[in-house]
Amino acid sequence: MHAVDLPHASRLVNHGPTVLVTSRHGERLNVMAAAWSMPVEFTPPRIAVVIDKTTYTRELVLASGMFGLCIPCRAVMDLAYTVGSVSGRDAGADGFDKLARYGIAHQAGPVLGLPMVQGCVAWLECRLISEPHAQDAYDTCFGEVVSAQADPRVFAHGRWSFRDDNAELHTIHHLGGGNFACPGASVQARPLAPAN
Amino acid sequence: MHAVDLPHASRLVNHGPTVLVTSRHGERLNVMAAAWSMPVEFTPPRIAVVIDKTTYTRELVLASGMFGLCIPCRAVMDLAYTVGSVSGRDAGADGFDKLARYGIAHQAGPVLGLPMVQGCVAWLECRLISEPHAQDAYDTCFGEVVSAQADPRVFAHGRWSFRDDNAELHTIHHLGGGNFACPGASVQARPLAPAN
Repeated sequence: MHAVDLPHASRLVNHGPTVLVTSRHGERLNVMAAAWSMPVEFTPPRIAVVIDKTTYTRELVLASGMFGLCIPCRAVMDLAYTVGSVSGRDAGADGFDKLARYGIAHQAGPVLGLPMVQGCVAWLECRLISEPHAQDAYDTCFGEVVSAQADPRVFAHGRWSFRDDNAELHTIHHLGGGNFACPGASVQARPLAPAN
Repeated sequence: MHAVDLPHASRLVNHGPTVLVTSRHGERLNVMAAAWSMPVEFTPPRIAVVIDKTTYTRELVLASGMFGLCIPCRAVMDLAYTVGSVSGRDAGADGFDKLARYGIAHQAGPVLGLPMVQGCVAWLECRLISEPHAQDAYDTCFGEVVSAQADPRVFAHGRWSFRDDNAELHTIHHLGGGNFACPGASVQARPLAPAN
């Protein structure tokens, strides 16, 4: 993975990929999938992500004041689907670590030590910006990006490069029920002339 | 266009497409592109979208308490890029109507009369939920979806259906600089078995 300049961090999620939200509070770790995230600011780089208040991840994020975002690709689509289908609460109120349960390889992020899932094509670490009303009313958690990395085979010079020769590294976009859209080759728009 | 059941409205933006935000206050209309939107709740169906406070659209949305979301497809990619590159403020502080400037065909939405852009593959009308702090601090506007429609050639039974034979109707996902990713054919994930 190569470092991504923080002013380019929003580009990592600009096109709406499904993300994995990772968390760490002391020795407790977890990962969940989230289809609902978006950048909200370029500078400072800030992101919003919806984390349901019933989830184990939400407990860890609020307790630690931070969360990680890992962007899965087609090669790890089944992993993303699985951690999005199973709750860390399923075994009881205490919560359990889906990283361990599914043997998901990960390493510590450079700034906050958040779990960064191997096989993903981008990693971000975020400090939670405490917004109790947005968290409570809309399950919307705002964060400031403090580190960003991406796989240079598919993200370079501040831009995704989706090509036929790196199809396994393309991001995944959840349509519902485990069905995902993956980008084909990208296309370039042209400006229209005014009609009048 | 066919009506989409409101509990399925979140599916229209679940996969992160670029959207057009339309607005109407009295006789004043406008349209802008936004890459930054996401659902925040299934029931009631609610969506968040980032609308910069300097835009003419933001003025109309706050004044009217409503906004439209139109989901462009590859066939109208140049239109989406153009209304995302030009501001309704460019001609001066009063603002001007990009729908008229670019000769963009539209019709009135069924509940709120918001401009629904022809050629798009889905239309939503939203009532703004007043959240002054989120609007001010993060340019994040929350809305409740009150009508939803989609093109049945590409969205049916509450799900997008991206296929080779409807490629011109695939949603567009902005990568930066007018470069868009479009979904290829969708793929189905399978659940992993626990490692332990």
